[in-house]
Amino acid sequence: MDAAGGEQLSLAAVRDALVRLEDSVVFALIERAKHRRNAPAYAPAAAAGGRSLVEFFVREAETGHYQKPEDVPFFPQDLPSPLFPSKYSAKVLHPSASLVTVNDAIWKMYFNELLPLFTVDGDDGSYAETVALDFVCLQVISRRIHIGKYVAEVKFKDAPQDYSPLIQAKDSNSLMNLLTFKAVEEKVKKRAEKKARTFGQNVTLEDTAGKQEGTAGDSGCKVDPKVLSKLYDQWVMPLTKDVEVEYLLRRLE
Amino acid sequence: MDAAGGEQLSLAAVRDALVRLEDSVVFALIERAKHRRNAPAYAPAAAAGGRSLVEFFVREAETGHYQKPEDVPFFPQDLPSPLFPSKYSAKVLHPSASLVTVNDAIWKMYFNELLPLFTVDGDDGSYAETVALDFVCLQVISRRIHIGKYVAEVKFKDAPQDYSPLIQAKDSNSLMNLLTFKAVEEKVKKRAEKKARTFGQNVTLEDTAGKQEGTAGDSGCKVDPKVLSKLYDQWVMPLTKDVEVEYLLRRLE
Repeated sequence: MDAAGGEQLSLAAVRDALVRLEDSVVFALIERAKHRRNAPAYAPAAAAGGRSLVEFFVREAETGHYQKPEDVPFFPQDLPSPLFPSKYSAKVLHPSASLVTVNDAIWKMYFNELLPLFTVDGDDGSYAETVALDFVCLQVISRRIHIGKYVAEVKFKDAPQDYSPLIQAKDSNSLMNLLTFKAVEEKVKKRAEKKARTFGQNVTLEDTAGKQEGTAGDSGCKVDPKVLSKLYDQWVMPLTKDVEVEYLLRRLE
Repeated sequence: MDAAGGEQLSLAAVRDALVRLEDSVVFALIERAKHRRNAPAYAPAAAAGGRSLVEFFVREAETGHYQKPEDVPFFPQDLPSPLFPSKYSAKVLHPSASLVTVNDAIWKMYFNELLPLFTVDGDDGSYAETVALDFVCLQVISRRIHIGKYVAEVKFKDAPQDYSPLIQAKDSNSLMNLLTFKAVEEKVKKRAEKKARTFGQNVTLEDTAGKQEGTAGDSGCKVDPKVLSKLYDQWVMPLTKDVEVEYLLRRLE
């Protein structure tokens, strides 16, 4: 995580990174929504060795770009070691952090649930661009969710006496309760929705007079703001907490 | 171009694509501005065979992703043929469109002029991510500028009697004058600036009361809106017109 800065880790830095990634998620979805659904990109293709074009693309694109704990590959098998040396050190996390991934769930969620909600049905033929944009969406959603590892580490360090007995008892449910703050989740949902409304509006020079920021009608938005609210409510926040619980269960190993 | 839809080409569709790409340019710059300047990514690196990391990355990333006339590779030598078949047809443009490129100028402008204007000096160590984001910026700026080929084609088709004598006389200056509309350029500059102000703001749940859209102080913006104005004024619009003139000079071949 950029804001983590070596071996320092603070809740403020983690929160900043999470809030900043909300913008990235909205930008990525807006860019993907430019294109039609483009179903042929997701069907097995002879040219890609029987894989779908999107799987082929993501496998190619992932080669060598994974160095940080929150950047988890979708196809981890046979990844070469990174070419670019990085100053980044993962020492702030417990070593078993690398075993925690919910990318299979993210992949299924993205293609089966999310994509139909924010793309228009149809086929515009630009499959290469489509799958590249899908990869950007997948990657940024995955990064957002796997930052849960840092969230869990910070929370554990703040109150080891609260977490340790539950970890020792492998009590996932109580850990989940300890990590759940309904009021905060409600705010995150609302903010993601507002960002979609702000960043997805059609900006023209003519429309400034008297219009309040963020009050533009949702119908003109490039991605329905309610989709962002749903994405965070039903998938991003629950999966982040799954990552947090998984990380904590291994924290005392 | 997505909006071109096969063999149909209209000025309205080209304009829509240009306006939509303004958003993409702003999004790309905002994402790159998350990171420090990261100078080591631009120096020759032993690990990348003596090339800079950014050149190595762009060469790798470009492999096989160029099928449309407005997607012009930065390193065209030895590009393999595309793996993904595309429905896209370039028939709307004159065949010599593929010879028109200003990518060398874009590359120099981006690294020498633009990057220092919207990134903070320093080094956060995340070079792989940095060069990937540079590539997104380069690619979207390049696409925006090379759509000039479509602009030129539409304008030529609308008034061949105005353009043909100038093309036959190889009169670049008069062609440039014919393609220049100061009032329109002023509007584009202002709109790009407003988009940076709108999309680069920090959206919070608390700040809605009474604030006018687009009037937030520029200091809080993730990319200085004046940088977008300058990018369009000094580089994007002049280079687009260079592309238009180059295209028109070959239009009667």
